[in-house]
Amino acid sequence: MSGSLQSASEKSGLPPGSLVHVGEVLEEETHITLLDYNRDAIEERQISSIEELLPYRARQSITWVIVEGLRNVALFEQLGQYFDIHPLVLEDILNTHQRPKFEDHESYLFFVLKGVLIEREEFSIDFQQVSIITSNKFVFTFKERLDDTLEPVKHRIRNSKGQPRSQGADYLTYMIIDTVVDEYFSIQDALDDHVDTTEEELLANPSSRTLATIQKLKRQVNNIRRSISPLREVLNALLRSDTELLQKKTLLYFRDVHDHVLRVYESIETYREMVSSLLDIYISSVSNKMNEVMKVLTIFASIFIPLTFLAGIYGMNFQYMPELKMKWAYPALWVVFIVIPVVLLAYFKKKKWL
Amino acid sequence: MSGSLQSASEKSGLPPGSLVHVGEVLEEETHITLLDYNRDAIEERQISSIEELLPYRARQSITWVIVEGLRNVALFEQLGQYFDIHPLVLEDILNTHQRPKFEDHESYLFFVLKGVLIEREEFSIDFQQVSIITSNKFVFTFKERLDDTLEPVKHRIRNSKGQPRSQGADYLTYMIIDTVVDEYFSIQDALDDHVDTTEEELLANPSSRTLATIQKLKRQVNNIRRSISPLREVLNALLRSDTELLQKKTLLYFRDVHDHVLRVYESIETYREMVSSLLDIYISSVSNKMNEVMKVLTIFASIFIPLTFLAGIYGMNFQYMPELKMKWAYPALWVVFIVIPVVLLAYFKKKKWL
Amino acid sequence: MSGSLQSASEKSGLPPGSLVHVGEVLEEETHITLLDYNRDAIEERQISSIEELLPYRARQSITWVIVEGLRNVALFEQLGQYFDIHPLVLEDILNTHQRPKFEDHESYLFFVLKGVLIEREEFSIDFQQVSIITSNKFVFTFKERLDDTLEPVKHRIRNSKGQPRSQGADYLTYMIIDTVVDEYFSIQDALDDHVDTTEEELLANPSSRTLATIQKLKRQVNNIRRSISPLREVLNALLRSDTELLQKKTLLYFRDVHDHVLRVYESIETYREMVSSLLDIYISSVSNKMNEVMKVLTIFASIFIPLTFLAGIYGMNFQYMPELKMKWAYPALWVVFIVIPVVLLAYFKKKKWL
Amino acid sequence: MSGSLQSASEKSGLPPGSLVHVGEVLEEETHITLLDYNRDAIEERQISSIEELLPYRARQSITWVIVEGLRNVALFEQLGQYFDIHPLVLEDILNTHQRPKFEDHESYLFFVLKGVLIEREEFSIDFQQVSIITSNKFVFTFKERLDDTLEPVKHRIRNSKGQPRSQGADYLTYMIIDTVVDEYFSIQDALDDHVDTTEEELLANPSSRTLATIQKLKRQVNNIRRSISPLREVLNALLRSDTELLQKKTLLYFRDVHDHVLRVYESIETYREMVSSLLDIYISSVSNKMNEVMKVLTIFASIFIPLTFLAGIYGMNFQYMPELKMKWAYPALWVVFIVIPVVLLAYFKKKKWL
Amino acid sequence: MSGSLQSASEKSGLPPGSLVHVGEVLEEETHITLLDYNRDAIEERQISSIEELLPYRARQSITWVIVEGLRNVALFEQLGQYFDIHPLVLEDILNTHQRPKFEDHESYLFFVLKGVLIEREEFSIDFQQVSIITSNKFVFTFKERLDDTLEPVKHRIRNSKGQPRSQGADYLTYMIIDTVVDEYFSIQDALDDHVDTTEEELLANPSSRTLATIQKLKRQVNNIRRSISPLREVLNALLRSDTELLQKKTLLYFRDVHDHVLRVYESIETYREMVSSLLDIYISSVSNKMNEVMKVLTIFASIFIPLTFLAGIYGMNFQYMPELKMKWAYPALWVVFIVIPVVLLAYFKKKKWL
Repeated sequence: MSGSLQSASEKSGLPPGSLVHVGEVLEEETHITLLDYNRDAIEERQISSIEELLPYRARQSITWVIVEGLRNVALFEQLGQYFDIHPLVLEDILNTHQRPKFEDHESYLFFVLKGVLIEREEFSIDFQQVSIITSNKFVFTFKERLDDTLEPVKHRIRNSKGQPRSQGADYLTYMIIDTVVDEYFSIQDALDDHVDTTEEELLANPSSRTLATIQKLKRQVNNIRRSISPLREVLNALLRSDTELLQKKTLLYFRDVHDHVLRVYESIETYREMVSSLLDIYISSVSNKMNEVMKVLTIFASIFIPLTFLAGIYGMNFQYMPELKMKWAYPALWVVFIVIPVVLLAYFKKKKWL
Repeated sequence: MSGSLQSASEKSGLPPGSLVHVGEVLEEETHITLLDYNRDAIEERQISSIEELLPYRARQSITWVIVEGLRNVALFEQLGQYFDIHPLVLEDILNTHQRPKFEDHESYLFFVLKGVLIEREEFSIDFQQVSIITSNKFVFTFKERLDDTLEPVKHRIRNSKGQPRSQGADYLTYMIIDTVVDEYFSIQDALDDHVDTTEEELLANPSSRTLATIQKLKRQVNNIRRSISPLREVLNALLRSDTELLQKKTLLYFRDVHDHVLRVYESIETYREMVSSLLDIYISSVSNKMNEVMKVLTIFASIFIPLTFLAGIYGMNFQYMPELKMKWAYPALWVVFIVIPVVLLAYFKKKKWL
Repeated sequence: MSGSLQSASEKSGLPPGSLVHVGEVLEEETHITLLDYNRDAIEERQISSIEELLPYRARQSITWVIVEGLRNVALFEQLGQYFDIHPLVLEDILNTHQRPKFEDHESYLFFVLKGVLIEREEFSIDFQQVSIITSNKFVFTFKERLDDTLEPVKHRIRNSKGQPRSQGADYLTYMIIDTVVDEYFSIQDALDDHVDTTEEELLANPSSRTLATIQKLKRQVNNIRRSISPLREVLNALLRSDTELLQKKTLLYFRDVHDHVLRVYESIETYREMVSSLLDIYISSVSNKMNEVMKVLTIFASIFIPLTFLAGIYGMNFQYMPELKMKWAYPALWVVFIVIPVVLLAYFKKKKWL
Repeated sequence: MSGSLQSASEKSGLPPGSLVHVGEVLEEETHITLLDYNRDAIEERQISSIEELLPYRARQSITWVIVEGLRNVALFEQLGQYFDIHPLVLEDILNTHQRPKFEDHESYLFFVLKGVLIEREEFSIDFQQVSIITSNKFVFTFKERLDDTLEPVKHRIRNSKGQPRSQGADYLTYMIIDTVVDEYFSIQDALDDHVDTTEEELLANPSSRTLATIQKLKRQVNNIRRSISPLREVLNALLRSDTELLQKKTLLYFRDVHDHVLRVYESIETYREMVSSLLDIYISSVSNKMNEVMKVLTIFASIFIPLTFLAGIYGMNFQYMPELKMKWAYPALWVVFIVIPVVLLAYFKKKKWL
Repeated sequence: MSGSLQSASEKSGLPPGSLVHVGEVLEEETHITLLDYNRDAIEERQISSIEELLPYRARQSITWVIVEGLRNVALFEQLGQYFDIHPLVLEDILNTHQRPKFEDHESYLFFVLKGVLIEREEFSIDFQQVSIITSNKFVFTFKERLDDTLEPVKHRIRNSKGQPRSQGADYLTYMIIDTVVDEYFSIQDALDDHVDTTEEELLANPSSRTLATIQKLKRQVNNIRRSISPLREVLNALLRSDTELLQKKTLLYFRDVHDHVLRVYESIETYREMVSSLLDIYISSVSNKMNEVMKVLTIFASIFIPLTFLAGIYGMNFQYMPELKMKWAYPALWVVFIVIPVVLLAYFKKKKWL
């Protein structure tokens, strides 16, 4: 979060609508993939300029353009010109610190989503911004990174002739959003591992390092929550919108995505509770440790301090101490030295301190 | 929760609407029970394929189909075909990690509920997904497990000729939901037992194991809450819906179920408060234990350390210590040895440390 | 609360609308009081069956029927028949674990309230369910116990010829609800006493028993809150309802009751805050006690341990210890024995440990 | 709060609308001030009965009646008769435990506010109930105490011929409410003083008395919040109301008062946070104190206990202890006696315990 | 906050609408800058009286008036007269303790914003009130301080002939608000620095000074939140308003500002969580420190107290202690003196106390 704002402030002062890429650069190069299809045919290729898209505007097919890498600002200017996209929309695509959102611009719909990027080894859950522009026959998808997040969608279009390919641009949009949201379910595998590791560490040996881990985990869960939470409103707004770009039968599918988002959100809430329980356990276990330390001290001190006093008495140098001359006094004292600890230990045992 | 997501992620990547059973398998076999009835007649039998249902479509009666066990995916495909059920509905029935929900699909209503499964001995409260499809004359019920949860409904239909059998499919739906919700009231017997046991353990001897029990109980209560909480919205949506599949007089009964759900929800909230009180008591009792330990230490140390010092003085080897030669010095010192502890004990008594 | 659910689960499995009394039995016998009045005349008597009410249906007067004790299930069946009351309403009256509610059944209104039962001596605040059915000219009131809760209403009807007796059944309903709500104000006298006692105990000698008292108090306040809280919605629903059974001028009176409920609710919130403050004070006072114990230990130990060491030095048996032979050594050491404690005590005094 | 309910319960049992003064008596006598004015003339005098107001009903002027002291119940009965005020309104004026409220009674508006009473010396913030009835040309103001709260309003009417005197009764109402609300800003001077004093005490020497002060402060802030909080809804309701008694141009002024109330409310929230921070600081500082005590104990004990042991060794009476006969043994031991504390002190210094 | 109210109370008692500057004086002099422009021409100059603005009323251009410094009350009176501004609006501009707000006065719109003032060195985040009045062709901006906050807007107007200069007064208003909001992003750099410093201090050496720093930070974050939070409603109200002074195409830009505000608000929420985590860490680290102290004490005491007792035994003066005469007794005891600590240290090591 803090990183995002830092970069955001770099841009402050520029006029609104100025096209500058703001955010971490996840990809230097910009890759454009074109996927044009209808019920009967499919064309898939890499293109290198927006001009190559122009012929497709006249065709009777769905044209899906995937832009990966956001450094080529010139490209976005062209896009704005040829496809009449509002400068603020282009600005939002390039500035990757947006909250998830849905905007209805009459001739097209604009979505911003957060796609999950999980690095398993070092437990880092990150997000890349996935923006979608859906017009009548064009769907533009913008991603920060060249990866295979959208591979399942491509696969379905390539393979299944029926359902997906006979549907409109709205169904393609649904498939993209559904794929991005389904990725969220994998966050929890990562979280599960991490919570379990932390819990074990907590029970084995709670240290201030454990506390740092819990705090980091808490921050991560809050971060995830912040990325997913606005999606609920986004889909709600979509379901209530009266745009003509969405057919009624597709809304049913978006309602399903909405359900998925609610389920993910609920499970993130569960992780929040679990992390806050970890904190409770940490604090209690610190108290318990202290208790244990105190018991050891108390047992040692309570047993040996009285004994030391007894020994001290007969270490005194008074001339008239009759006991000192008695033959059985020393062994008798040893009996006392043994009885006192036994009695005290029994008492501590009864108190469950041992 | 975590288990549910793990399984959910297994499926991610599949196209939406693909029929795969997602969730723990509670029943290997799929059992289909048919209960066809009207005011005068009743027919009850096991069937083995969806085709056997087709003749009933023409009859003037209510047909209730109970499907127990969700492994037979082929059956769901047939169901979709013959009864024109939307693929997303079938997917939701098979994926048992749904939140409770209500959807109005015009020609039928779709409900997802969570039915309670209580194992008393080992205190485990679990849920099975109960889905209901209610059309004009058909009611389909899908459960994960072959058990007698719905026995009370069957019993009422079999025995009472009047009321239930002269009502429509909406009343049957009501009876099913009412039966599922009424089961929730038994959760609390289980919780009561467990809270009481934990409270006793807490008072007897709070250990870090007690803390673990409290945390587990907390998680369980949160889990139950999460399963029941969306039901309130489900019934609210139902009551406000304008579907023609529900008659006005039946709504009154659904309002009654809504009241029950509110009562259950409130009692779960009470358990949440009780569990959080248990945590408070745990933390306080750890502090109290520490206090007690410290008091023992302080009493022993405060009494014997000064006495040891006194004994130490007369253990010194100075040549000119007049007291050492006095005959009454040793007995006099014993008086001091007795007076000091008595005074200190009185002081501690006054401070209520004893 | 837990008791209520336990009993509720006894009934689970029965068909809805089956008339069984569910709840603790507060009264074995069922007493029915009839109060029929108009501006000019008043009739008050005990009746023993519902049939006796039938003649009153034709009269031009308000008929108030008070049923105390809910064991006579047959009576409710008759009531349902003769006055056309919905079975679910009768079930709600008999099952005394309802939340306060308001239902508009067109030909009659149905209210469930919770009336306070306070036993001052043993500080127990309990509730009995008071249900009201208000039709055009009949008002039925159902209570669990035979007591004088409604005496003020009867008194007003008997004595004042004007206002109350020239009003309709809605005004009678208002008087009943107002009387039940006004009783709530006496809860707080009971709570005040109890909070004060607990606070004194807390300051005098906080023990784990005090914690138990605070927790019990907390549970009690939460319990009261749960009984009163839904009343706000009940009265809101009533005020917004468009039933013809309530005249506009009477609504003004119900608005007044609504204000009273808000005030009671606010004062309960205040008690919640007070109880949570008690918990804070408890925890702090346990810490403070520990602090005090530690100070005593530290003072004793810090003073006498160094002195004992000094005495120990001159208790050594080295042959060459010149100090042992000096005549002034022993008295000099005594000076040290006195100076060290004085200095330390001054230091502790400065630190405000004494 | 508790006081308010106690008194409220005194009245419970009385019929609604019975005029009895409920609340603390802040003024024995009832003073009535009349201020009749229009653009050109102004008349101000003390009156002693409601009858004296009757001639003013026919005049073309605004008549402001200020009633201070609420003991004269007869007066309110007259008021009700002559000006057709609803008995429940009169009851609310006399029972000074109302929440702030706004009611539209068609021919008049009824407001209840809480006016601040600050006693600086003993830091007590109290409230008196200020009720306002605004009709077409009459404005009645009822206060519990004879004081100069409303002096600024009188002053403005007396002195400025223009604006205020050419406006209607609604503008006068605005001026009264504005004056009452502006007084709230002075609460914060009182709170500032008190929070500062407490914070200093907390840093100087946190005792259980400090905790009591914090708790008292917390209760006071909550109390203030409860008195101010409903005012937001009151003004909201006023702004949204469609009464003809308020002119559109005056609404602008009420919107301004609404802004003031929001600002006051926000600042009270700030004080709540500050008080809860004080509690955090208190608890931390108790822990810190304990830490300090423990450090002193640990330093003393860790240094002298080992030394005492060393001295004890050479106090033993074995016949064969060669060191006892060595001439340099005693001085050598002194070196050890000095080196050990120096090393330990250096260690504690490094740990920042000193 | 407290400062703001204190000053506010200075004014209480004055009639509403009286023009007095309330708040800290950030600028003694009042500077007025005029910027009149249309697509083709631009005029920029300092003016010294409101009269100089009058000729511009007839021109076909956008006239932007920037007033910096709020001490010249006479100027505001003139403004009110010549431009027909409501006295309450002028009062709000002069009283700089307003909450951010938006008011639609038909012939003009009124905005109050809070502009950030950051002093990096001493980490102080402060706000100046920026008020805007937008009419058809005039935009008035009022600031407390003469600074370059609005330089970016001026720069854009001066340099770019196209977009900004061909737009109306609403677009100018947008540019001003956008510039003020964009400044918020820089708050977080300041907060980042401060949170990091505090966290380091916390890990290095938590003292009660650290607690004070955390509390101060918490207060600052709450303060910022309070200044930004109402902006969300302000922009919401603006977006939903139906004023004719805003063109539909400009609303798109305001929606963008709204998004920015939401992002800033979310990041402030993140800082709140971080500060509350700092508090958790502080409390835990105090506990950990105590644990460490106790361990040192316990280790020292547990090792040396038993040894001292052993030494004490052989310091006793009994005549019949056979061990004293054995030659190997002293060396044997030394073995014990070494074995006991070694065993105990191994035990403590196993318990991870070392």
